[in-house]
Amino acid sequence: MAAAAPPPPPSPAPIPETTVPETAPPRHSLFARIRLASIFDVPHIQRLIHQMAVYERLTHQFQATEASLAATLFPENPPPPFTSFTVFILEVSPNPFPFPSTAQQNPNFSPIFKTFHLDLPIEDLEKETFRSLNENDVVVAGFVLFFPNYSTFLAKPGFYIEDLFVREPYRKKGFGRLLFTAVAAQAAKMGYGRVEWVVLDWNVNAIQFYEQMGAQILPDWRVCRLTGEALQAFAHLNI
Amino acid sequence: MAAAAPPPPPSPAPIPETTVPETAPPRHSLFARIRLASIFDVPHIQRLIHQMAVYERLTHQFQATEASLAATLFPENPPPPFTSFTVFILEVSPNPFPFPSTAQQNPNFSPIFKTFHLDLPIEDLEKETFRSLNENDVVVAGFVLFFPNYSTFLAKPGFYIEDLFVREPYRKKGFGRLLFTAVAAQAAKMGYGRVEWVVLDWNVNAIQFYEQMGAQILPDWRVCRLTGEALQAFAHLNI
Repeated sequence: MAAAAPPPPPSPAPIPETTVPETAPPRHSLFARIRLASIFDVPHIQRLIHQMAVYERLTHQFQATEASLAATLFPENPPPPFTSFTVFILEVSPNPFPFPSTAQQNPNFSPIFKTFHLDLPIEDLEKETFRSLNENDVVVAGFVLFFPNYSTFLAKPGFYIEDLFVREPYRKKGFGRLLFTAVAAQAAKMGYGRVEWVVLDWNVNAIQFYEQMGAQILPDWRVCRLTGEALQAFAHLNI
Repeated sequence: MAAAAPPPPPSPAPIPETTVPETAPPRHSLFARIRLASIFDVPHIQRLIHQMAVYERLTHQFQATEASLAATLFPENPPPPFTSFTVFILEVSPNPFPFPSTAQQNPNFSPIFKTFHLDLPIEDLEKETFRSLNENDVVVAGFVLFFPNYSTFLAKPGFYIEDLFVREPYRKKGFGRLLFTAVAAQAAKMGYGRVEWVVLDWNVNAIQFYEQMGAQILPDWRVCRLTGEALQAFAHLNI
């Protein structure tokens, strides 16, 4: 994967006299965990969605409150994991995560752990805002929200990724790829047929990234949306 | 709606002497019903999906069997209606549908009835194939498959329409609009935020139809898909 450091050579290569000797830069380890979100993550999820709206310059569409997110994402009688709206939370820590106890383990999903080796430490000015409730050294760095979709041709469910977001200090380091991989791996394990999402056509970097991950970009389909008053007009429509 | 005949004027308009008197064309009544599909509809649903694959010239992608559709659309422990994959069946009959008995009624959805007045009777060469199991004069004419999606900005569910299909003899008469309206009305009644679907960019007639229904066509989003071997590669990926 992207951020792994190459193994050191078996013996140091001789340094030509014409070059300045380089010392190996110090490596900064950052430990990452992806786990299923719970209702206790709602304040962080709400802040992450708001940051995404700012990034996309769509704050005028942003209406999510902690209460509305809690009610719609974590209902009182939750459906089985992955059968409805599902959130994975990405957390990072300067210290290794403890392996979850049996009591903490979810039979449907085992948390994913990965160690990143960075050339420079990450300066996170919002560390306090996104600090984990229970673990003092853990910070929420991103999330992905997805839910089942269905292909009639395959007669199989799949996953649709609605949002994938990594906070600014953690971008371009492989964390987005890790979140995407977690969803694709879950779909593959469950025998699902597809993972789908949408991308802005001018976002060449994202398109290139998705193509490298093996995705097709479907050029001739357009998204249609009925919302707001145009949708409400159907509520009392006399068919 | 589209196919309703205009009401007759209160008194006949005087016929100018220079025109040939017209006799009113005979009207052919066709009664339509939209109801929730059950597992007993699977053979018809499978044939409808195959016809859609033929129409879209995508039969090479068609893999749905009656068994795979039954297992994925109608599992043993079905989730509450509209919380997962949902199929509405469109049926037509030359005779009025009986009003459903209380025992037949679903607390979450009341069947929708509409009478169409057509200038010509519809010649349906596949009437036998698509005949209803229980009601001899009833024929399946189309379906719509949809499921919940989610908007993080609205913090509300919506519906995504995966397929909407009307058999060839029944097209351009308002049946597609009726199926679409049934989904939009259900979304509006449930307080959902959006209905979304995709359309081929060259399908100008469909785009015009959707815009007349109040939909926006989002020009700059592209659909991305990870499927087949590229998805399976994630199953055993060492993250």
